[in-house]
Amino acid sequence: MKITKPTLLLDEYNCKKNIQNMFSRAQLHQVDLRPHFKTHQSLEIGQWFKEVGVNKITVSSLEMAIYFAEEWSDITVAFPVNILEIDTINALAEKIQLNLLVESIEVAQFLAEHLKFKIDFFIKIDVGTNRTGIMPSKIDTIESILEVSHDSDTLIFLGFLGHAGHTYKSRSKTEVLKIHQKSKNVLVDLKAIFKAQYPDLILSYGDTPSCSLADDFSGIDEIRPGNFVFYDVMQYLIGACKIEDITVAMACPIVAIHKNRNEIVVYGGGIHFSKESITDENDVTIYGKVVKQEENGWSDLVPETYIKSLSQEHGVVKVLDSEINNYSIGDVLIILPIHSCMTANLMKHYLTTADRKIAMFNSTVF
Amino acid sequence: MKITKPTLLLDEYNCKKNIQNMFSRAQLHQVDLRPHFKTHQSLEIGQWFKEVGVNKITVSSLEMAIYFAEEWSDITVAFPVNILEIDTINALAEKIQLNLLVESIEVAQFLAEHLKFKIDFFIKIDVGTNRTGIMPSKIDTIESILEVSHDSDTLIFLGFLGHAGHTYKSRSKTEVLKIHQKSKNVLVDLKAIFKAQYPDLILSYGDTPSCSLADDFSGIDEIRPGNFVFYDVMQYLIGACKIEDITVAMACPIVAIHKNRNEIVVYGGGIHFSKESITDENDVTIYGKVVKQEENGWSDLVPETYIKSLSQEHGVVKVLDSEINNYSIGDVLIILPIHSCMTANLMKHYLTTADRKIAMFNSTVF
Repeated sequence: MKITKPTLLLDEYNCKKNIQNMFSRAQLHQVDLRPHFKTHQSLEIGQWFKEVGVNKITVSSLEMAIYFAEEWSDITVAFPVNILEIDTINALAEKIQLNLLVESIEVAQFLAEHLKFKIDFFIKIDVGTNRTGIMPSKIDTIESILEVSHDSDTLIFLGFLGHAGHTYKSRSKTEVLKIHQKSKNVLVDLKAIFKAQYPDLILSYGDTPSCSLADDFSGIDEIRPGNFVFYDVMQYLIGACKIEDITVAMACPIVAIHKNRNEIVVYGGGIHFSKESITDENDVTIYGKVVKQEENGWSDLVPETYIKSLSQEHGVVKVLDSEINNYSIGDVLIILPIHSCMTANLMKHYLTTADRKIAMFNSTVF
Repeated sequence: MKITKPTLLLDEYNCKKNIQNMFSRAQLHQVDLRPHFKTHQSLEIGQWFKEVGVNKITVSSLEMAIYFAEEWSDITVAFPVNILEIDTINALAEKIQLNLLVESIEVAQFLAEHLKFKIDFFIKIDVGTNRTGIMPSKIDTIESILEVSHDSDTLIFLGFLGHAGHTYKSRSKTEVLKIHQKSKNVLVDLKAIFKAQYPDLILSYGDTPSCSLADDFSGIDEIRPGNFVFYDVMQYLIGACKIEDITVAMACPIVAIHKNRNEIVVYGGGIHFSKESITDENDVTIYGKVVKQEENGWSDLVPETYIKSLSQEHGVVKVLDSEINNYSIGDVLIILPIHSCMTANLMKHYLTTADRKIAMFNSTVF
């Protein structure tokens, strides 16, 4: 397909390699892989996980669970239960093995009263991210939730779930591993406290940086990374992947060139990339990194060439003084996104480097 | 409609008031209003502009022009021409009065060679934003483009267009007016140079901060503000609107409460609000401001209550210590977005405070 406007390219070969690699890592470390599908949000890409042997998944909303329930029968919604959506919860619980996250007595009680079908639930533990979850020291809160579950026929305790989202602030493998070890231990310690009473309880854990870099998963039962399917500039700067592991990129037409300030304007803005930014190795705030275009995809980074700002439809790309004359209006730049989950969510479709269209959740007309 | 998940509310009454106010300002200052529709992206809201007398519009992409061409016959695409979309340009030019932005000789020549139907074009001038446009001192470049137009039957010169996007960095009316005056003068000076040769040339100008605050539009022929239809926290912090002028807000269910750190977690994240942030009056980076819920809408700001961070689906709201006990899981918070254009683009639908659904460009299932 001739690219004429902002398009999200997908390198199918390397994407499948990322999936195989994470599955192999899970096997090596004897943990189940329950990948998070909020990154790709696509039934077709989901099939690539089935092909390697994955049979259960994670999503971030009930709407996404409905979409994937067409082909997946064991789904964890890794977001605190929204009690206002109890009707949707019951509709899903009737159809599939639905696993939810509970982090308060109020929600446990609400579910016990309103569930019409059985669900399994994880107690969400705050392993240090301080976003959601019960502090691990709050044993009394955990016990109160377990009591509600004990008296219920529909609300079945499955185990503890943690997400070390604070690895995203790391800028080296050492930093990631330090957070990983501490976060994992939080869960393992809780298991030790409750395993006599609940011998089958499982521990669910795992962000992409930890799961890509760590080798100690002792005590953990399943991991839930998601971003690794595509990776992105953020994961690269964290140290969780190499540039060649990044499997999505935006193709953006050049619409203006300003040689006086070594800047190129591309068609590709905040409604395509998202406004996610990151501070790079040179302490510069960037919104995307330009790579070299190849016949069927892309290769290395173009040195010091990045999106410096985004408007609704515009991206302003900073280019080296020595290179500015090599670009022309009508050329297409290939740009790695900062956060592939957010970019994919906005773009709603993929075009593989083999020129095939792939739809996703909420795809509109291509 | 019972709100159960993140929903973009629209206050129809005050939105129509914003439209009437800007139309009245344009009449008072004797300029045409060619509003930018990239903010609301909705045919139905477009009708509210027709009702006050607007008959021409601005959009930010050819795709959006196709959508609005169903009901509007005079459309300016305020984005540098993307020559790769020449087929779409020709299709639109056959159907409507299409006005494009040219800022290089290469693009002018390309259009002169490839246009099959007449279009009007503005020469985009960089009035100081340094994003797109020709520097006003580059009279030779302007003259070269005009020569290409002179030799063409399809590429008709309409005038100069500027966008003082740098008003968005202002934090007071004084700052906005200073930028406005300087930017406007850039265009007025160019008109003086070229008016002997092109007596009908017009000047198109206007961002929302300037158009909301300025009273001197002498020499300007049309203004193109867009955001004013909704306004948002950014415009409030710039000083371009009052809180009561903001006509969209996100309704987000509370899913968790963390009293130990005075934080509430809502269902409403980066895929709903966008990751746009701003530094507020207290020098804090915020992603949204909470307002008081009223029976059919909302009223004032809740003091010091704001979104401090956004993940894909989560928003973490900071709440005053004295207020944290007044919130419950299952309550719905009403939150003003930082940048309404980006939020509307993500949400794809509106729910009016009178409980009516409104669709927009690329709306998916509600």
